[in-house]
Amino acid sequence: METTVKNKQVILRNYVKGIPKESDLMIITASDPVELKVKPGSAAVMVRNLYLSCDPYMGILMREPTPSTLALLDAFIPGKPIAGIGVSQVIDSDDPSFTKGDMIWGIVNWEEFSTINPAAIFKIDVNINVPLSYYTGILGMIGLTAYAGFFEICSPKKGDTVFVSAASGAVGQLVGQFAKLMGCYVVGSAGSKQKVDLLLNKFGYDDAFNYKEEPDLDSALKRCVPKGIDIYFENVGGKMLDAVLLNMKTYGRIAVCGMISQYHLETRDRLQNLPDIIFKKIRMQGFASYDFIDRFPKFLEFVLPYIKEEKLAYVEDIVEGLENGPAALVGLLHGKNVGKQVLKVA
Amino acid sequence: METTVKNKQVILRNYVKGIPKESDLMIITASDPVELKVKPGSAAVMVRNLYLSCDPYMGILMREPTPSTLALLDAFIPGKPIAGIGVSQVIDSDDPSFTKGDMIWGIVNWEEFSTINPAAIFKIDVNINVPLSYYTGILGMIGLTAYAGFFEICSPKKGDTVFVSAASGAVGQLVGQFAKLMGCYVVGSAGSKQKVDLLLNKFGYDDAFNYKEEPDLDSALKRCVPKGIDIYFENVGGKMLDAVLLNMKTYGRIAVCGMISQYHLETRDRLQNLPDIIFKKIRMQGFASYDFIDRFPKFLEFVLPYIKEEKLAYVEDIVEGLENGPAALVGLLHGKNVGKQVLKVA
Repeated sequence: METTVKNKQVILRNYVKGIPKESDLMIITASDPVELKVKPGSAAVMVRNLYLSCDPYMGILMREPTPSTLALLDAFIPGKPIAGIGVSQVIDSDDPSFTKGDMIWGIVNWEEFSTINPAAIFKIDVNINVPLSYYTGILGMIGLTAYAGFFEICSPKKGDTVFVSAASGAVGQLVGQFAKLMGCYVVGSAGSKQKVDLLLNKFGYDDAFNYKEEPDLDSALKRCVPKGIDIYFENVGGKMLDAVLLNMKTYGRIAVCGMISQYHLETRDRLQNLPDIIFKKIRMQGFASYDFIDRFPKFLEFVLPYIKEEKLAYVEDIVEGLENGPAALVGLLHGKNVGKQVLKVA
Repeated sequence: METTVKNKQVILRNYVKGIPKESDLMIITASDPVELKVKPGSAAVMVRNLYLSCDPYMGILMREPTPSTLALLDAFIPGKPIAGIGVSQVIDSDDPSFTKGDMIWGIVNWEEFSTINPAAIFKIDVNINVPLSYYTGILGMIGLTAYAGFFEICSPKKGDTVFVSAASGAVGQLVGQFAKLMGCYVVGSAGSKQKVDLLLNKFGYDDAFNYKEEPDLDSALKRCVPKGIDIYFENVGGKMLDAVLLNMKTYGRIAVCGMISQYHLETRDRLQNLPDIIFKKIRMQGFASYDFIDRFPKFLEFVLPYIKEEKLAYVEDIVEGLENGPAALVGLLHGKNVGKQVLKVA
């Protein structure tokens, strides 16, 4: 391998207004060559990025930060590369825990080569024979999100009725299957016939609907869950949440994992069914996977046997080439992905 | 005492539309005389009602029930007396646990004399030297609501910032004082200067504002709680909740005790700040006191010493005469009460 490279990066042009467009991002090749070595004494690790994860929260970080969004994560910086979860190979390390050739996952910039702080990365056990891309999803923060969100926030019981929105997405497909493993009745919504087919035929959902073809979400829910919803795994927000509130059962739980439909609207949907929270004594709780990082080993213990025994389906939507990163990320924010959106860099 | 009486009652004329008016209720004297004895073998208890509690949820029960409100409680029945928490004296009993002269509290109809099922009533220990009216409030479901809502739903810690809406009301005045006992910084909102004075000078709130005089609730909150809110004790809903969401801190808790501003609107306030639940990982939980009835003895153990040592202020707004019941209840729904609204019947 060369000792210096020109590093290709995906840069945020400016804070985004409205829904992100591909032109809000640009590909640049940094003019200064990057030396493929870390400085002695830096305690840093240099990696080549192999897979990058495209996730809905990244759309929020493309916008000018507000006190509300800053509570979640710092925004991306215009003129700098965006960042996210990645799977990477160590090419040099000044940290004794990592050696050249190690596979890791963690937060990296969207670029070919990154120098990173080893405090925030996890070493991948390559003896676990799964695709490396899984560490951007089912074996990483996405898996932990579905696991902690469902088992810890939703307080599920056998026989509960579970409704999942964005149900074929990275998190949704796992939540639905975890709920089936638990003995729940599981219904999902998604935005195309293809996704609804996946829900019914691949992920084992008991029922599903295409929200884009439903003139009235309340009626769709009443049709699919006539006795009401015990658990709503919330990924979309807005009108869907307002309809769900009307269909929750007493003592229902709503795990708020995301509200992707609302992040980029000039005028957000305005909800009027919040009083159902008091009428039905609903618990609604926002959460983020990083608050459950201490459960990660327990999660792996839980999930790996299901993956090995092929009892858990996992659908990825892999786009190749850093130069196609903007299209992949923006496509995700428009719901064009089918399954977990991943960008294969190298 | 006479052996039969003509029983005066407060009747719901018809299901209410919009905000209840006094004319939605009427006083009647039942034409058939009531014998002041229970039937042998009935296991019933006959009581003379002394105090009746006026509470915001009763406004919901005056409306045509919906699947949502039925999850809370059955609606009142047009043509029949309304019902609520009362303090009453036993005048006859076919249940060996109760004898003539006993004081009890529990659910009774709004009438002078009621025959009730003793399963749903509590005997009052008259050796505890407090006004009997307290059992409609601080020593009954209202006290339990404030106690369980604050200590169990809000997960308070010393130093937390607590915001209470309808803060001088029956529940709010107690929550504010419980929060001060816990070492929190406590801010309240109310609907008049007189109420704000009570918050600051009687209930020990650190700061307070009159929401009717604030052109912008978000600004009012930013002024009173510039560093944000850890705990919101929600009594009103609507625009106030939308403004509070913007001012919640990360990992904030919202105990939803009521949303009185929304129950009687033709068009409810429409909220747009729900995404703050995910940005800040907020837990928002509806609850009702009856779910915590098993904590009642522990609550009394907690609260009685504070009452005896006069370390807990409690303001009641007592109206006399069953014929003034409609005005008292409707006045409460318009926020005319100052403190816990009670109707003294006899």
